[in-house]
Amino acid sequence: MTSTQNKPASVNAQSGLFYTKNLDYPGFDFEITHECPKTGARTGRLTTPHGTIETPNYIFCGTKASIKNLSPMQMAEAQTDIILANTYHLMIQPGADLVQKMGGLHKFMNWNGPMLTDSGGFQVFSMGHGSCADEIKGRSTGTKKESLLEITEEGAVFKSYLDGRKLMLNPEISMELQHKLGADLIMQMDECTAYQVTKDYTAKSMEMSMRWGDRSLAAFEKHHNGSQALYGIVQGGIYHDLRVESAQYVADRPFFGTAVGGCLGGSDEEMYGILDVVKPYRRPERPVHFLGIGKIKDVFRSVRYGIDTFDCVAPTRMARHGMAHIKGAQGERINLVNACFRDDPTPLDADGMSSIDIPASREFSKSYIHHLLKAKEMLAYQILTQHNVAVINRLMREVRAAIKEGTLDALEKEWLAE
Amino acid sequence: MTSTQNKPASVNAQSGLFYTKNLDYPGFDFEITHECPKTGARTGRLTTPHGTIETPNYIFCGTKASIKNLSPMQMAEAQTDIILANTYHLMIQPGADLVQKMGGLHKFMNWNGPMLTDSGGFQVFSMGHGSCADEIKGRSTGTKKESLLEITEEGAVFKSYLDGRKLMLNPEISMELQHKLGADLIMQMDECTAYQVTKDYTAKSMEMSMRWGDRSLAAFEKHHNGSQALYGIVQGGIYHDLRVESAQYVADRPFFGTAVGGCLGGSDEEMYGILDVVKPYRRPERPVHFLGIGKIKDVFRSVRYGIDTFDCVAPTRMARHGMAHIKGAQGERINLVNACFRDDPTPLDADGMSSIDIPASREFSKSYIHHLLKAKEMLAYQILTQHNVAVINRLMREVRAAIKEGTLDALEKEWLAE
Repeated sequence: MTSTQNKPASVNAQSGLFYTKNLDYPGFDFEITHECPKTGARTGRLTTPHGTIETPNYIFCGTKASIKNLSPMQMAEAQTDIILANTYHLMIQPGADLVQKMGGLHKFMNWNGPMLTDSGGFQVFSMGHGSCADEIKGRSTGTKKESLLEITEEGAVFKSYLDGRKLMLNPEISMELQHKLGADLIMQMDECTAYQVTKDYTAKSMEMSMRWGDRSLAAFEKHHNGSQALYGIVQGGIYHDLRVESAQYVADRPFFGTAVGGCLGGSDEEMYGILDVVKPYRRPERPVHFLGIGKIKDVFRSVRYGIDTFDCVAPTRMARHGMAHIKGAQGERINLVNACFRDDPTPLDADGMSSIDIPASREFSKSYIHHLLKAKEMLAYQILTQHNVAVINRLMREVRAAIKEGTLDALEKEWLAE
Repeated sequence: MTSTQNKPASVNAQSGLFYTKNLDYPGFDFEITHECPKTGARTGRLTTPHGTIETPNYIFCGTKASIKNLSPMQMAEAQTDIILANTYHLMIQPGADLVQKMGGLHKFMNWNGPMLTDSGGFQVFSMGHGSCADEIKGRSTGTKKESLLEITEEGAVFKSYLDGRKLMLNPEISMELQHKLGADLIMQMDECTAYQVTKDYTAKSMEMSMRWGDRSLAAFEKHHNGSQALYGIVQGGIYHDLRVESAQYVADRPFFGTAVGGCLGGSDEEMYGILDVVKPYRRPERPVHFLGIGKIKDVFRSVRYGIDTFDCVAPTRMARHGMAHIKGAQGERINLVNACFRDDPTPLDADGMSSIDIPASREFSKSYIHHLLKAKEMLAYQILTQHNVAVINRLMREVRAAIKEGTLDALEKEWLAE
């Protein structure tokens, strides 16, 4: 892994940035417990007011304040440490005021562990441009902007996915919404650019994201009572010099954590090229979150660039398409809809190597799950979702142990089929 | 409760009945533990190869070998004793041969308690005529027969709901299918007539159901190995003399249990009139199952006619429409979709009187469930289904205790709003 070894430059004075205060995060801590000189991966302990998690770790997606098909108890049974919810969806339904009135997200959804919310910006922009995953991965869908009405320095105006009413999201509103929702880890407002945009547009957008970052910090400070910690987001698209500039900006501001977001290119090479460029410019003592990325192969590669936390809808969304994560399976998974499972009496975790000893993984045959999927019985999705979550949590435990023991390469070979 | 006090007459010799053997049910037992002289209700213990249940009890509907939205572990957590699956659905998908190959229904769906299957006939006829509930309750829908192609002495020919292929169900096929599925309690094949049919049609149909009953007994005997017990079904529609004749038939045959099926009229009065007429002609030492009926008010009234087991989709289907059973609520339930619950911080079982101490009933606010329903999050249905099942199981425990203590009237007042 080569990387540009330049020292962080001073922040671009032309971008009109103004936030210069320091912020304390008294209820939070990030301690690096091990760094592997060979692979570059590290382990740590991330403390929040709702508990401490070991890193690297995986943040499961509970978009509308619910992990689809799973109760918080089932998430805990699958040994989940941390989850997220999406500000964009919750601001529309049921509204952040209602969540605050009900005691905040933790109490509302009955999840007592650490939580993260995003700024809401990502969905505003990605739903405007096409699908989220398509945008991060640089796949063009040709979908027209349907819900995003206007982006200005002030913020973004968009149509509600629910009833079409016109809504505004900007740094101040995002901070207020996230404050009301009350997750532990929260995100600055940024613009998430599409793959197709020019370098010039990306640069201008990144500079606006920096100004939005400063406005986010100022608005965050207003509500700051020690219960939340703010992440800055590194933008800059696929352009390495812009990524460096954005990483320097985040490093120079009193964010608690660093997130890597925005367009990550059209190939794994482009994506890891970006992580490689960013790594020397991020503040190493801060936790680094990789936004929206989290296939098993991505986890193994990204931890080598010092990524501490991941989030991705893949484990839960795959379950809703009948797919189960299996250690060592081709493509990381099997598809239970396939006819070959019709009379397969073995459970999902037949050899005890993929998941943990929970009924979802051990007590239902593939034949039964195949039947449930064909019959469109919801129990299928409950079983597969809990299994996939348990598998990813086991993966992360094994990854942490392997980083400490220097056996990450060997573990990667076990998990990923050739 | 008045009832006709005639002694059972001998079976109608003109109907061509021929099954005269005795059948033993060595793995089964039904013991009456208490009979209340005042109300006519009784408690008992029904033993099957998969365990003993106290009666009166409620059999939850797992149509396609799954209680919708709940795992068997969640059913057990809600203190469920017994469930059923539908032969009609399973013969089409995944097929009884596949279930048998996978070790039978209990193993296939991972439910180790007692189970019941129906003959498949009810769905063949009711899906042919309209909806099941409409037919039992005598509501005319005007729906045309769509899937039922032909009813003859031989059996019923119908179209698969899945792919339209032509299928046959008759007593021999039903017994073979139920043998392969392997539930503990199984049902004879009968014709379920619609409300609109004449007395003449009902009589002819009932006589055919008797001949089908004898063919069911003969076919059952062929497979009989002590693992299953057969129920005869009392037909005769809304015509009391036919109900008496049918009840006498069932009493005169070596069925293990008595089921009351078919059209029960258009009002509660007609329905309870039928139970009243049947009661003196059923064999009192046999368990009595009431097919497809099971609102809370029905439970309280029916146990007074000596009904021992109920089955109904209501508790699980209501959950899928956002409704929660609450002790003493108007109409037995509340509708969580209603706007009044938007900011209600109390859990479903706020006073601890309706359900039991499970997270579904105690740890989620009505506000959160309202949000989940509005957001179409599947977790809502899991929570509401488990709550409703737990409520009905608590109801049945309280009903059994009240029968023993002679306090059924008082309990009924607690459960049902004025």
